[in-house]
Amino acid sequence: MKIALLGGTGDFGEGLALRWAASNEIIIGSRELEKAEKAAKRYTGMLKRRCIYSEIRAFENFEAAKRSEVVVFSIPYEYAIPIARQISGAFDRQIVISPLVPMKKNKEGKYEYSPSTHGCAALELREVLPVTVRLVSALQTLPAEKVKDLDLTLDLDVVVCSDDKAAKQVVLDLIRQIPCLRPLDGGPLELSCSIENLTPLLLNLSRLNKLKDLSVKFL
Amino acid sequence: MKIALLGGTGDFGEGLALRWAASNEIIIGSRELEKAEKAAKRYTGMLKRRCIYSEIRAFENFEAAKRSEVVVFSIPYEYAIPIARQISGAFDRQIVISPLVPMKKNKEGKYEYSPSTHGCAALELREVLPVTVRLVSALQTLPAEKVKDLDLTLDLDVVVCSDDKAAKQVVLDLIRQIPCLRPLDGGPLELSCSIENLTPLLLNLSRLNKLKDLSVKFL
Repeated sequence: MKIALLGGTGDFGEGLALRWAASNEIIIGSRELEKAEKAAKRYTGMLKRRCIYSEIRAFENFEAAKRSEVVVFSIPYEYAIPIARQISGAFDRQIVISPLVPMKKNKEGKYEYSPSTHGCAALELREVLPVTVRLVSALQTLPAEKVKDLDLTLDLDVVVCSDDKAAKQVVLDLIRQIPCLRPLDGGPLELSCSIENLTPLLLNLSRLNKLKDLSVKFL
Repeated sequence: MKIALLGGTGDFGEGLALRWAASNEIIIGSRELEKAEKAAKRYTGMLKRRCIYSEIRAFENFEAAKRSEVVVFSIPYEYAIPIARQISGAFDRQIVISPLVPMKKNKEGKYEYSPSTHGCAALELREVLPVTVRLVSALQTLPAEKVKDLDLTLDLDVVVCSDDKAAKQVVLDLIRQIPCLRPLDGGPLELSCSIENLTPLLLNLSRLNKLKDLSVKFL
């Protein structure tokens, strides 16, 4: 698969790039081409040291999205929607993965899920992108620090929501490519709110119980 | 601890009664005294066969709540709030545990979290009971079938929310009494929505992925 990681210079994008590079063509997208190129070069070097010879490429977000089959918005929610609006012309029939979570900190310093009037971030992204785009909500509960540490086995679950069955299957398979990571079908896109809601919970639990980078497993 | 399980004739109440009986005084509450007595007798017998000699008692919900230090609303949400209103005179300084989850099934047969205008069930229960009551939200993610199967080790997490630190500590300790069950501090009561929200997600994931009685662990 040709996968674009928009905002791929951040920790989460780095983790996904490194973990998917062996079996896919990775493109790092960024608002600045130079930053994307620097990151792509760094990831390529890191992979080479692990004997994975995969050339990671770099483009501005628009070009990265346009050239790919799967596009991941590995961008914080507050920037993601404006960026999606700016580059919506780059999209046609791509599978777009939304790991977006709208959150705010309340006055006690606790995270609260705060979706816009659209119900959840995935539905908001759905409205901004062309109707031809095949939107899939996933990956919200994976802490960037854990994803980018290749020495760590991700014995975790990832819930996937989409209204497009074939697109959902592609994403389930991509998740299954990462050893031990278990994808679970979360139903249609409108149920994305129930998984987006997990991220502020995980952040609060981590902080309150002094447990680092919590994620989730269903059993 | 003297623990009343309101609606304790159901599967969830049965599970909690059996698991807490060795270290606590259990009272089964029900709308009908006769049903409560029958259940209490049955549980006492089940425990005896496991060499746990604990006399489980039975009362109507009002009396059960009045006589206890900890009161669990092991009643489905739709009945719990009206019952709480009816018996609110039984409450004074008790610790009340709310495992309540407001849910509805949508037309595709998926569960959706549907809190009232109060934001979440725990806050709704908070308003119905006297202000002296020390309300704790917990146990939402434990499937009744797993709790009542004493041969099953509950290697799971339970998130606990409350504004009353001492009451929260009592509930954390009660959860810790059940082997392998790990209590986690979930912060103040208003964050209860983020754990109540997990129950419809667990039900949907169970159904969609053909996995039975899913619960949750944070790691």
